[in-house]
Amino acid sequence: MKKVLVLGGDGYLGWSTALSLSKDYEILVVDNYLKRKLLKNLKIKTLLKVPELKQRSKLWYNNSKVAIKVKIGDVSNYSFISKVIKDFEPNTVIHFAEQPSAPFSMLNQKNAELTIQNNLLSTLNLIFAVKDFNPECHIIKLGTMGEYGTPNIDIEEGFLNLVHKGRKDKLLFPKTPGSIYHLSKVNDSDLMYFATRIWNIKVTDLNQGPVYGVETFEENKILGLYPMFNYDSIFGTVLNRFIVQAVEGFPLTVYGKGEQKRGYLNIIDTIQCIKLAMKNSPKKGTFRVMNQFTETFSVNELASKVQKIGNEFGLKVKVKKIRNPRKELEEHYYNPKNTNLLDLGLKPNLLNDDVIKNMIDFVYTQKLNINRNLISPNHSWNTF
Amino acid sequence: MKKVLVLGGDGYLGWSTALSLSKDYEILVVDNYLKRKLLKNLKIKTLLKVPELKQRSKLWYNNSKVAIKVKIGDVSNYSFISKVIKDFEPNTVIHFAEQPSAPFSMLNQKNAELTIQNNLLSTLNLIFAVKDFNPECHIIKLGTMGEYGTPNIDIEEGFLNLVHKGRKDKLLFPKTPGSIYHLSKVNDSDLMYFATRIWNIKVTDLNQGPVYGVETFEENKILGLYPMFNYDSIFGTVLNRFIVQAVEGFPLTVYGKGEQKRGYLNIIDTIQCIKLAMKNSPKKGTFRVMNQFTETFSVNELASKVQKIGNEFGLKVKVKKIRNPRKELEEHYYNPKNTNLLDLGLKPNLLNDDVIKNMIDFVYTQKLNINRNLISPNHSWNTF
Repeated sequence: MKKVLVLGGDGYLGWSTALSLSKDYEILVVDNYLKRKLLKNLKIKTLLKVPELKQRSKLWYNNSKVAIKVKIGDVSNYSFISKVIKDFEPNTVIHFAEQPSAPFSMLNQKNAELTIQNNLLSTLNLIFAVKDFNPECHIIKLGTMGEYGTPNIDIEEGFLNLVHKGRKDKLLFPKTPGSIYHLSKVNDSDLMYFATRIWNIKVTDLNQGPVYGVETFEENKILGLYPMFNYDSIFGTVLNRFIVQAVEGFPLTVYGKGEQKRGYLNIIDTIQCIKLAMKNSPKKGTFRVMNQFTETFSVNELASKVQKIGNEFGLKVKVKKIRNPRKELEEHYYNPKNTNLLDLGLKPNLLNDDVIKNMIDFVYTQKLNINRNLISPNHSWNTF
Repeated sequence: MKKVLVLGGDGYLGWSTALSLSKDYEILVVDNYLKRKLLKNLKIKTLLKVPELKQRSKLWYNNSKVAIKVKIGDVSNYSFISKVIKDFEPNTVIHFAEQPSAPFSMLNQKNAELTIQNNLLSTLNLIFAVKDFNPECHIIKLGTMGEYGTPNIDIEEGFLNLVHKGRKDKLLFPKTPGSIYHLSKVNDSDLMYFATRIWNIKVTDLNQGPVYGVETFEENKILGLYPMFNYDSIFGTVLNRFIVQAVEGFPLTVYGKGEQKRGYLNIIDTIQCIKLAMKNSPKKGTFRVMNQFTETFSVNELASKVQKIGNEFGLKVKVKKIRNPRKELEEHYYNPKNTNLLDLGLKPNLLNDDVIKNMIDFVYTQKLNINRNLISPNHSWNTF
């Protein structure tokens, strides 16, 4: 059985990925519970109470007889991660071990420093450990579509074929990140491209759009195995937040004009994409970049969809445009490419009415857990 | 009198810049002596014994009655740098406070981590301190031409006017750095561009080529005020190393084919460029990038020049091609632009025979200080 190491395996996507892979692969999940600490400091609760990794692993084993190994530790610490790589000898490492929130990174200097330090040193020390102890291993890294920003040209997948003054080259796509978090991911990509060029390792960088959804496949009967679902304005992604706002009878908070477009995908497709990347490993010395989303929407379009379905449930959903806490273009060209994963066989699960209905249905069962104080944005790109 | 804060003011360029500006500006130099510590750990000595900053400042004051204030501390520490910015209230900050060596950054994991951590957190915390306490201040940051790598297209100054599938945008020039050090500088540039866009501060990023020379203007009668001149294979720049090798009767060590081309400049012109950048401050919200070199040479051309002049001195200079410790293209297209500084009035001091003669003359007076063990390269991009 091939071995997969999931770094940041406690989070929304890390855990769901580990769980989904566990029947076909030997899995070790690693996490230092950084996000749990940050949530605690900010007094933010997730919609569902999420047991710690060892409990979840036990719960899964009792239910399925499938094992998931757990190790608590800090990937940004070279001694730790190099020992893990040496001892476990993974065929693939899936790297989610980063501070995952743009608003968090913009709250103050301390958070910005934490984000840069944690994310860059996690990536740096992972590539060092792989180079030093397991150079055949395939690193799959979660990046973000937000690295590109919103350029006035089509967004290609990682690289750009340039013609400049009659000469040609293929260079990294120039990126214009809009938060310290997104910037840390740009720098991660630079690091990994460097490692493939200079040290001949192999890396897939998945530039993912905002993810939505709570139910994946295997675990959907056991609540204790559900992913860490955030609906607050710091760690929650936009569609997940809108669903919770609709259920709670709170207006959907659209930032600014709401014409900001992004590429989105269902958490089910995050897992599908990672499996495809894993099964189709690139050659050594390759930095493969794939844009990981299935469709693009403006924030207004998302709000309308949730409003329409919510109203069918009798929720009387209102949409409220509020001052944009972010500094970003609110109207812009947006045409990102996403053919690399489709070419590998991705079958998109699109955002249809049923998906929204199911999300509302599920969140409704958890309505008593919703904390209204967490719903309204209380951060800004400009106040500090 | 306007106030200038020089960060990393103990180094080769930092001290020379501070000294040269001190007659016309109120100067505070800051350094944490990181480079001195790294040199000590690696048992590397500079050609001249360089007194610590307070002694040099005293020496200069006794000689010229011009004061240079000194503060020892770590720019990557936010509490420290924010207090310095708040207390000194500089009009301009010149930021040299970085680990400056590509080979050093490639020696091992520890050095790579130190380079990323020190360089990125210095830049991050400087921009935070300026944004928080002195947003009108102009930051001048020393970057490097090595950030660009050796693309097959002309290297523009920081940005590229793109036409892609019929649409246009002006984006950051895509960079392909060849060492962890160069990569840290790419990430610095990303951070500073971000800070100008999101927080409206003003930054000049000077992408400098390798610098040569030892004598600047004011201090050239007092040896204790000379810059920190390295000729070892870790911290020494190529022409400075060749001059010392020629004087010592050691073959000039050309890496690989020697057709690697770079943009070079005299230390005198580094100072001239910084003065021009300072006198011509950009508007708030601007990230201005200028490529800072005066002429391009291949390594073979530099070796030939030193050989020719050295032989006129009777030094019997040999050139030896050795296995390239770096991983880099040894033959490549290279056409970088450098008109921004020329447009501001830069008058280049070119690398003519007299410049090389004067360097040989000077190094000859210090011949007894040369340690042959430091001359030959003992590092590699590949061994670790």
